[in-house]
Amino acid sequence: MAKSITSLNAPNPNVSVDCVVFGFDNEKLKVLLIEQRNTGQFEAQLALPGDLVLERENLDEAATRVLKQLTHLEGIYLKQFKTFGDPNRVNNVKDKEWLRTFREDPAARVITVAYYSLVKLEDYLPEAASFAGKVIWQPVDEIPALAFDHNIIVNEALKRLREEFEFKNIGYELLPKKFTLSMLQTLHEIVLGVKLDKRNFRKKLKNSTTIIALEEKQTGVDHKPAQLFVYQSKTLL
Amino acid sequence: MAKSITSLNAPNPNVSVDCVVFGFDNEKLKVLLIEQRNTGQFEAQLALPGDLVLERENLDEAATRVLKQLTHLEGIYLKQFKTFGDPNRVNNVKDKEWLRTFREDPAARVITVAYYSLVKLEDYLPEAASFAGKVIWQPVDEIPALAFDHNIIVNEALKRLREEFEFKNIGYELLPKKFTLSMLQTLHEIVLGVKLDKRNFRKKLKNSTTIIALEEKQTGVDHKPAQLFVYQSKTLL
Repeated sequence: MAKSITSLNAPNPNVSVDCVVFGFDNEKLKVLLIEQRNTGQFEAQLALPGDLVLERENLDEAATRVLKQLTHLEGIYLKQFKTFGDPNRVNNVKDKEWLRTFREDPAARVITVAYYSLVKLEDYLPEAASFAGKVIWQPVDEIPALAFDHNIIVNEALKRLREEFEFKNIGYELLPKKFTLSMLQTLHEIVLGVKLDKRNFRKKLKNSTTIIALEEKQTGVDHKPAQLFVYQSKTLL
Repeated sequence: MAKSITSLNAPNPNVSVDCVVFGFDNEKLKVLLIEQRNTGQFEAQLALPGDLVLERENLDEAATRVLKQLTHLEGIYLKQFKTFGDPNRVNNVKDKEWLRTFREDPAARVITVAYYSLVKLEDYLPEAASFAGKVIWQPVDEIPALAFDHNIIVNEALKRLREEFEFKNIGYELLPKKFTLSMLQTLHEIVLGVKLDKRNFRKKLKNSTTIIALEEKQTGVDHKPAQLFVYQSKTLL
């Protein structure tokens, strides 16, 4: 009882945050992973940057703090998207040893509040915390087995990212302000992970009220210059 | 330590679920509220149906169980939408007495995983659990001060409902299969909580690929029969 009153900066044993940061490098969609802290007793696994929430911080603060502590990344908008609470999510054999080394009560149930983000990869150079292994950007179509239920969390984040991308037109900040339809199609293909038919893609854009054609073409290209477009945010029905 | 292993059906002191069930009765959008269990020592507050998660159940199971236990409602699809974790969310003076009466550790931090749903009100007749006060459907534009941070949770649920309504075309199951544009406009006005201009509304629908005009009109009405429409789910870009 006394614990929750006196140890205000103690980690809450039952609640963590995990961050799924997607990075776009014009060719691939990648996700930020870290190597778990390793004591040399067992093989280090790859995992999402995540940790327990402190008693006195709110969830958004925890996500920002944990990402910064583990990868040195900051100034990234993290959006809460789902909480994962399978009673067995941290009870796999592969995770038990690690938990025994680092957590006070390795059998405690942990639910994790997951956050995601989408950034231009070139703007962010992550760097591992001194106590962690390396930090890597891993292509989303080549993700190995991760610690805990982190593969499930990445897949759910990807699903949410794709929904928001389609319905809310997020992601335009990944393109230059004035872009060609080819650039837009490539962005869609990479984020959605599918090949799109050029004719259908352009036909559907014709009905769009958010992609506006400019009276302007590309310059300085060695092919026939393409028309330029801008994105204009949608007014709601 | 032993607690988390032995008391598998014990409530986890740090994690709860809350359910925001919206009901549509053709005239108003309402939300399901319950009176808190009352010991007679203090004034009962209105609250969302919610309770602590048990050690061995997952979050979706907890939401379904709690809604059923408190209101006898079942068969409702509950969608997780956000987790609320302000460290002070259950520490208001107004909530302290109630917590002292009902919780083992009233000072423990509780984060709550919130779920929402949208139902046709006529299909559901909630009934209070024997240990709770009454269950009511309260219009969303007349919600009084609720227990804990439940006003914030209702507002966030409403925001999410409105987003999903607009972007994902949820809510068509609230209309008859064949509907008129007036019925559709009324549904939009009630869910979104705004008056819409008839001409603009119809102009925007013209671009819709999901609302299909039928070669069919209303019958048995005492005014000029209006054209009927059906909803067809959207193919993604």
